[in-house]
Amino acid sequence: MSDDRRGGNSPLPFNKVKIEDNFWGPRIRTNAKQTIPTQFKQLEDTGRLAAFKLEWKPGMEPVPHIFWDSDVAKWIEAAAYTISVQSDASIEAMMNKTVDLLVSSQQPDGYINSHYTVVEPENRWTNLRDCHELYCAGHLMEAAVAHYRATGKRTLLDAMCKYADYIDSVFGVEPGKKRGYCGHEEIELALVKLYEVTGNDRYLKLSEYFIEERGYLPHYFDQEAIARGEKADEYWAKTYAYCQADVPVREQTTIAGHAVRAMYFYSGAADLAGINNDSGLFSVLESLLDNLTTKRMYLTGGIGPSASNEGFTTDFDLPNETAYAETCAAIGLILWSHRMLRFDLDSHYADVMERALYNGSLSGISLDGTRYFYENPLASSGSHHRQKWFDCACCPPNITRMIASLGSYVYFYNDTDAIVNLYVQGEGQLEIGGRHITLKQETNYPWDGNVAITVQVDQSSTFALKLRIPGWSDGVEVSLNGEPLEAADVEKGYLKINREWRNGDKVELNFPMLVKRIYANPNVKQDSGMVAMQRGPIVYCLEGVDNSIQPHKILLPDDAEFEAVFEPDLLGGVVTIIADALCLDDQGWDGVLYNDTPPAARQCTIKAIPYYAWDNREPGWMSVWLRNG
Amino acid sequence: MSDDRRGGNSPLPFNKVKIEDNFWGPRIRTNAKQTIPTQFKQLEDTGRLAAFKLEWKPGMEPVPHIFWDSDVAKWIEAAAYTISVQSDASIEAMMNKTVDLLVSSQQPDGYINSHYTVVEPENRWTNLRDCHELYCAGHLMEAAVAHYRATGKRTLLDAMCKYADYIDSVFGVEPGKKRGYCGHEEIELALVKLYEVTGNDRYLKLSEYFIEERGYLPHYFDQEAIARGEKADEYWAKTYAYCQADVPVREQTTIAGHAVRAMYFYSGAADLAGINNDSGLFSVLESLLDNLTTKRMYLTGGIGPSASNEGFTTDFDLPNETAYAETCAAIGLILWSHRMLRFDLDSHYADVMERALYNGSLSGISLDGTRYFYENPLASSGSHHRQKWFDCACCPPNITRMIASLGSYVYFYNDTDAIVNLYVQGEGQLEIGGRHITLKQETNYPWDGNVAITVQVDQSSTFALKLRIPGWSDGVEVSLNGEPLEAADVEKGYLKINREWRNGDKVELNFPMLVKRIYANPNVKQDSGMVAMQRGPIVYCLEGVDNSIQPHKILLPDDAEFEAVFEPDLLGGVVTIIADALCLDDQGWDGVLYNDTPPAARQCTIKAIPYYAWDNREPGWMSVWLRNG
Repeated sequence: MSDDRRGGNSPLPFNKVKIEDNFWGPRIRTNAKQTIPTQFKQLEDTGRLAAFKLEWKPGMEPVPHIFWDSDVAKWIEAAAYTISVQSDASIEAMMNKTVDLLVSSQQPDGYINSHYTVVEPENRWTNLRDCHELYCAGHLMEAAVAHYRATGKRTLLDAMCKYADYIDSVFGVEPGKKRGYCGHEEIELALVKLYEVTGNDRYLKLSEYFIEERGYLPHYFDQEAIARGEKADEYWAKTYAYCQADVPVREQTTIAGHAVRAMYFYSGAADLAGINNDSGLFSVLESLLDNLTTKRMYLTGGIGPSASNEGFTTDFDLPNETAYAETCAAIGLILWSHRMLRFDLDSHYADVMERALYNGSLSGISLDGTRYFYENPLASSGSHHRQKWFDCACCPPNITRMIASLGSYVYFYNDTDAIVNLYVQGEGQLEIGGRHITLKQETNYPWDGNVAITVQVDQSSTFALKLRIPGWSDGVEVSLNGEPLEAADVEKGYLKINREWRNGDKVELNFPMLVKRIYANPNVKQDSGMVAMQRGPIVYCLEGVDNSIQPHKILLPDDAEFEAVFEPDLLGGVVTIIADALCLDDQGWDGVLYNDTPPAARQCTIKAIPYYAWDNREPGWMSVWLRNG
Repeated sequence: MSDDRRGGNSPLPFNKVKIEDNFWGPRIRTNAKQTIPTQFKQLEDTGRLAAFKLEWKPGMEPVPHIFWDSDVAKWIEAAAYTISVQSDASIEAMMNKTVDLLVSSQQPDGYINSHYTVVEPENRWTNLRDCHELYCAGHLMEAAVAHYRATGKRTLLDAMCKYADYIDSVFGVEPGKKRGYCGHEEIELALVKLYEVTGNDRYLKLSEYFIEERGYLPHYFDQEAIARGEKADEYWAKTYAYCQADVPVREQTTIAGHAVRAMYFYSGAADLAGINNDSGLFSVLESLLDNLTTKRMYLTGGIGPSASNEGFTTDFDLPNETAYAETCAAIGLILWSHRMLRFDLDSHYADVMERALYNGSLSGISLDGTRYFYENPLASSGSHHRQKWFDCACCPPNITRMIASLGSYVYFYNDTDAIVNLYVQGEGQLEIGGRHITLKQETNYPWDGNVAITVQVDQSSTFALKLRIPGWSDGVEVSLNGEPLEAADVEKGYLKINREWRNGDKVELNFPMLVKRIYANPNVKQDSGMVAMQRGPIVYCLEGVDNSIQPHKILLPDDAEFEAVFEPDLLGGVVTIIADALCLDDQGWDGVLYNDTPPAARQCTIKAIPYYAWDNREPGWMSVWLRNG
């Protein structure tokens, strides 16, 4: 295994991070105990596992689908991450069974694909644009890396290296190779992982080829369509911007097309920019992320408003009730912003990551870990509910692997710095300059903004402790061993304390955590005149089960008083917000549809819960934005 | 020809009404000079006329469509109405050519249908639910009545009586007849017209059969589907409420399904209730219209918010930008409310009729009379525009026949009363108790609320003059021959002046016409916190061409001053509204998507135009509702 040669900082792997809080801890345990087993059963019941037996014959149902392999792969990843942190024989048995099946399906040339191998072997690599072949390969590579790291076993890793070698023999600029790339990006970031774990430059170069080749003319998807006997200009998605292939990556300026594809692509590109120290590519990505986060992102970190392309539309178009905001897209945004943060330690990347993590991705799974949102709207009239599974089941195993690997987002380190990105009670065990250092976090985050970090070292060590100041915070009080620290350095939103640390040194942070009224840019027409509530990183919403007045009849006045109340027995323990509001009265409106005097308003009390926790009780309406009045 | 035997009041036919104003007059002339000829060309160019030659053979394009006949029929109606008021040799020639073609297509048994006769003769009457056969027959009957009344020629009338006789021999409760009725109602009201012009009770009874049979079990559409080899429960529209056939009409309580179908059906049912003096049926219709106008109607009189069923959804669901609000549906509402008003002279029916007439139906045609809206949303981001024609072209000839017959909505009369429903400059020539009476209206309505009505009689006559007080008016000043009339009777919104009238007696009315802020019932979530402007019967909107600030950034304060300005050169001459407003500033929001301080507002001026006149200049956004703030 090679050293990670990327520039910037290294994430502390999640198996070096202990999570001992009341927020993520229970989610991770539920993930292991409920989510992973029930998803395994879905993989079995729907035929996704059996598909790897390659026993399908024409006429049989179900027909292995082109993207089934990716669902299985993400589940393996989640299982591997889970047993890395906490051994679990049952999960390991399911995982090994799955890995064996998968490996058994490999063809002599290295190819693995449960659809193409049996359903249409003659069409292998004939429709990269639509058919997810390399996308599935990418997810299988990620699974292989996770499985190897968790178990030390090379079974799947070797199989996937063989597959990657085969792919490398098929695609590239060299004569005789196809100059293709996948319509659904994913393999780019996966090949980087394969490179990191094997040290084999060939995989990095293949990733680089896939990233840089994309969008050049003559367009591969045109040529491929013509070869299939189709007309190049009859692409169902109308534009190659749908798959970020309208122009080469370095010419892209606007976040466009299918949101998940975009996120995976730019995550892979960020890896490449980091490893190659390619500031040109990085600044392209900076601009794209800036376009996304300043013009096209929901308050929840959800992205991609439109169902029709599962993706982006125009600047400031953020409809609430019809928001697509796929769970996978919010997860993709976490993956991308995490990589940007790694290369450029600027807290605004961490703010994006934190926003998507605590809100628009976490909403994707029920508190009991068995039901999922594919779409994460910011308002519902009462008909949107989590489901146990989907025919297109990308989201469930994606949120599962995200929760299982949560620890890896908490800390970065490099030769001189220990960096805290997220505040999560527990421990991180770092090695800086050959010294073992444990950072012990005590906090009730995200419910309050007090964080105590104790440094545990065998012997005094000099390093810089960099502590993120969240963007939602208006300021921070810092003390070191009980003494206020007034003149601390702040670099790009990270508080820097560079000193010789002794065992037991304790830094205490206090980020005042008030309920904030949030307003959208006035160009967002759907939020015009609206206000939302946020407290710390948590975006709030109102649900019908707590509020008898429908949201369109509620006005939140400018001077409304908020009360934040921790309710230990509600929704796994959450801080709710109680507020004075005005409610429109329909008295006098019986039988009147239009009138020249406005409806009267009366005092009422509203109750808001964290957005991520909605639709875990009685079904009903939900709204993040309320009228400001 | 029989006398009209209906209860209530008789509409004064439009050929007894002279329209000499600057509002409708130009529209009626444009209708004759531009609309009728260009539509005739469309009927020719698209093959709708040629279809009646019955020369279609398998493989030929275009295939005569199941509802083409109805487009031709409505055009004949419009042409007939037009030449009734103002002779026009060119229109008459087009009309006669069309009528001859149509009559030539009649089969020996009386059947007329340009689709079924040649495309699928074996399937005649096998799918009443979906295939518009009786609907087309109904429109042809309306055309025949109009043609006969305009020309005195019986050609088409006799042909349609023969067709109606044939239909009567096929459908009914008698043994051996089909107990069917049309999925798209229309023939019910048409048969009443045929009955009125011929005096043949058989047509009234057939209409009554179609109206009363609808919705009974065993369900005809079930049986018919089974006979076609389909499953009864696999109806594409899911519910027979789509075509008002889920339960019999007397059990219906909620306005539902396809809006145009509903309007035509209830118009026919209102005719029946009136003729039969059937107060039971009338009160069912009252309740249905009440449900519609107090819970399901746009401010413009547009109805049917949903594109998916071209119709109704739930109470108070009135989305603005996605409003379907088909032009035909608003016209249907005029037809229905006009019939209700006739039977029960209550101004609130006239208010509904006037609202739909001046706003949601008139918007369906461009000022130059050559382009049409099918859908009439109350907001547009700039992509909704009138078109020259539609594949499904029901709306263009419908608005054309509406404009051509406008006069018939102005006056009612009966043995003792002369009734003015609408204020339109011109004359109405009535006969009450054998006396000829001319009512001469002088007014600039709808631009101001002053109306002078001069009574012209050969000799003094005693009758009651009933003058509608529009619902939008807060009061009225009345004078008779220059003397204030203080103690006038008001009955159901009609001012009643019962006296012996002498030639030259003059009633002057002044309805103060102020710009009103209109608010929606607080249960309409889409209009929550919004305000619209109305002046007299005219609903206003903002258009991008007049306003540089987008509508979601505009706030109309409670104390905004309005100025109403007549602009003779704008949009054919309209009163515009200029108002002080607040506009949200995006200064300080560059690169900021969410913030904890709201956008600042600055003073600005907005300009509103009549809704019906939008999209007649540079394309751009439009909005009826603005934020109230």
